[in-house]
Amino acid sequence: MAEKSLYGYRVEPQDVDFTLRATLTSLGSSILNTAGQDAYGKGFGVDVLNAENHSWVLSRMAIEIDRRPEQYTDYTIATWISDYGRVLSTRNFTLSDAAGGEFGRAVTQWAMIDLTTRSAVDLSWVGREHNDAVVPVPPPTERPRKIREVTPTRTTEHRVVYSDIDFNRHVNTMRYVEMMLDMLPVEQLTQDFPVRLDIHFLKECRYGQTLRIGCEERGQAVLFEISGDGTTAAVRASVEWKRPEE
Amino acid sequence: MAEKSLYGYRVEPQDVDFTLRATLTSLGSSILNTAGQDAYGKGFGVDVLNAENHSWVLSRMAIEIDRRPEQYTDYTIATWISDYGRVLSTRNFTLSDAAGGEFGRAVTQWAMIDLTTRSAVDLSWVGREHNDAVVPVPPPTERPRKIREVTPTRTTEHRVVYSDIDFNRHVNTMRYVEMMLDMLPVEQLTQDFPVRLDIHFLKECRYGQTLRIGCEERGQAVLFEISGDGTTAAVRASVEWKRPEE
Repeated sequence: MAEKSLYGYRVEPQDVDFTLRATLTSLGSSILNTAGQDAYGKGFGVDVLNAENHSWVLSRMAIEIDRRPEQYTDYTIATWISDYGRVLSTRNFTLSDAAGGEFGRAVTQWAMIDLTTRSAVDLSWVGREHNDAVVPVPPPTERPRKIREVTPTRTTEHRVVYSDIDFNRHVNTMRYVEMMLDMLPVEQLTQDFPVRLDIHFLKECRYGQTLRIGCEERGQAVLFEISGDGTTAAVRASVEWKRPEE
Repeated sequence: MAEKSLYGYRVEPQDVDFTLRATLTSLGSSILNTAGQDAYGKGFGVDVLNAENHSWVLSRMAIEIDRRPEQYTDYTIATWISDYGRVLSTRNFTLSDAAGGEFGRAVTQWAMIDLTTRSAVDLSWVGREHNDAVVPVPPPTERPRKIREVTPTRTTEHRVVYSDIDFNRHVNTMRYVEMMLDMLPVEQLTQDFPVRLDIHFLKECRYGQTLRIGCEERGQAVLFEISGDGTTAAVRASVEWKRPEE
């Protein structure tokens, strides 16, 4: 039976903000890098899929970080696939410090698309062919929430440039998160309370588009919506800091 | 006598553009990361300096990339300090592929600043105390060029946000490079000719400032100038692609 796979990381100077702790997006970037490396190593990475005109696309993601690790700290990301559906596969992660203490976790859901039609394909065959890669351990936290509606009270615009795009010519996942978080006060972003981010991708945003990023504060959470060139939502997200009970 | 130190890297999916080759800024980021790691490991890193209210600040940098390595390729960065002046120390780099073929090189010049006054301090003492860290091998290419004047023909603006800033609360070096390169057509950025980037830092740009980024095409080169809040130049740079002789 398959086991969780472990990948080692270190908080480098380019990963920290001025609190000298890893930023949420640098941790998110390591999580996504782990997904790519693990799929690549197991023979169902983007390289193999591209040869068949397919690719993985991230559909939804939830990340929880209890405390952000300090600069030059080593940490380990464990990853495993818990299940394949017809449309989505679920890949899970836990983040642990050098002493083995878990300080974060993530649940991601991936679709496989046809690169010509850009629409989802049935991925049951991956489940069959790579059934031995499934680890029967449930996700470490609640799966990514669907964010149904955002009513922005503030908006900003961003034109998609070269440094925003990834190997698929779409806006890089963590760049979306940066665009959203950059709308919040720096004091809110650098506080060291546990945080949960849910992000939900509906459409792809491409080079040259002008994005509208909207933000709504709702209770303890901040909701975001990004849309491209005046169309309907492309990305929705929610960020929630868990303040200690007072 | 000291020897060059070697650091291993791999081109990860988040490092490539849609040509599936490492971006110039991801290679630049690895170069700067190597500088930080090497100084840290040898006992004169930002961690030790901060304790004495000092820090390293990059003053000038030249990067030459002959060909951009492909995704999932391993490469090695060799680094050495060739000399310490009273104001600047020179740290050099060569980038080599798995077969040992050199595909890039860089020369960086660093000042040490007092964190309270933000002005340069005499770093002769580092040269004395860490003289054994100097490797008597000259820089692998021409030192960074001073860029004296830029007359922009096009400009754009950028407000400095949280994701732009580094542990010093200043704009991250590679983010400056991204802001500049993002003004050029994507076809120019993805061509695979040898490229040389010279960048020259005059002032620090901080969170909340509105930057003006100007661009001037001059012969084979593109020159850039960034200034903050309507003041004089904070950063100047030049990028030159070397097209094959026709």
